Amino acid sequence: MNNWSAPAQQALVTVPDWVQSLVNWQQPYPDDTAKMTLAIELSRQNVLKKTGGPFGSAIFDRASNQLLAVGVNRVLPLHNSTLHGETVAIMLAEQRLAAFTLASDTGRELFTSCEPCAMCLGAVLWSGVNRLVCAGTAADARAIGFDEGPVFNQSYQYLQNAGIEVVRGFMQNQAKAVLDFYASSGGTIYNGRNG
Amino acid sequence: MNNWSAPAQQALVTVPDWVQSLVNWQQPYPDDTAKMTLAIELSRQNVLKKTGGPFGSAIFDRASNQLLAVGVNRVLPLHNSTLHGETVAIMLAEQRLAAFTLASDTGRELFTSCEPCAMCLGAVLWSGVNRLVCAGTAADARAIGFDEGPVFNQSYQYLQNAGIEVVRGFMQNQAKAVLDFYASSGGTIYNGRNG
Repeated sequence: MNNWSAPAQQALVTVPDWVQSLVNWQQPYPDDTAKMTLAIELSRQNVLKKTGGPFGSAIFDRASNQLLAVGVNRVLPLHNSTLHGETVAIMLAEQRLAAFTLASDTGRELFTSCEPCAMCLGAVLWSGVNRLVCAGTAADARAIGFDEGPVFNQSYQYLQNAGIEVVRGFMQNQAKAVLDFYASSGGTIYNGRNG
Repeated sequence: MNNWSAPAQQALVTVPDWVQSLVNWQQPYPDDTAKMTLAIELSRQNVLKKTGGPFGSAIFDRASNQLLAVGVNRVLPLHNSTLHGETVAIMLAEQRLAAFTLASDTGRELFTSCEPCAMCLGAVLWSGVNRLVCAGTAADARAIGFDEGPVFNQSYQYLQNAGIEVVRGFMQNQAKAVLDFYASSGGTIYNGRNG
């Protein structure tokens, strides 16, 4: 075959430049409130800056409380349906560590502004984090038209059986407010089958 | 904060160079057998070339039968737990089309050498393909130690309810042989929590 006609065989995953002015790589984030406040603020700024959907995530080292990586939804701007807040944060954390898993003796935790969709729930399992903290609920996302896919109570049970602590509904109202703002400001509700 | 200390904020997703000598971007793949043979051969070559885990996928346009993109598992070499065969193929197909969904009037189909894990099953839904054909089973992957995550009968039902035709077990033996070869040749069984 002719190589000249081969399509480009790469995809680049990035977060927007504005992220750097929002995060603190040096100082620890002392508690769950500080950590989730960052995840939700990432979701809010992603809407305001029009750089993706209303979802943000942040991954921390549990021993030091230091930020390892952040992610925001990049589906529309990067033409990539797999780039939810959680998957982007996981990819960037693993790049930073040059490791295929975030598992460690003391553990890592993922804070997300909304409960993970089916894809991201699986990605959390493969990431090696041992704590997942969620703000908005799947119902909050569905209320503005986002599909969450096949996520069941047994799905969360599976993660817990694998040793992952799961916290849901923490600071839910603040996260839900961002989702509702996105919808009321005319944000695109993208699902795979209606594109 | 000091920008100099900010970690790299990108991840690059690629397939190995050898892929180009295996695929045909010009000629259609006439039937399911030709399409799945490619997906399985991608999985086999990925083991032989030691460029990732024993999983391959290919996405086709259903009207023209032409190849849109391929993917192989890249978890270990690219330090990225989200890069399974299916997600890589989906990302590259969307990059090629410069679109966040593969949905089209005539449809696209994803052939995968093994039933998708929980993450990839969700990713298939968001990709916009309307046909999923699987060779090896989740049980085949579990038999050599791979975790498949929370995938249930209702998960497949959810995809079918969303309009995705699902075929499972097509050319299963050929795909299972690659999984078994990977295990018997000492391939790393990577799961998130044992990294």
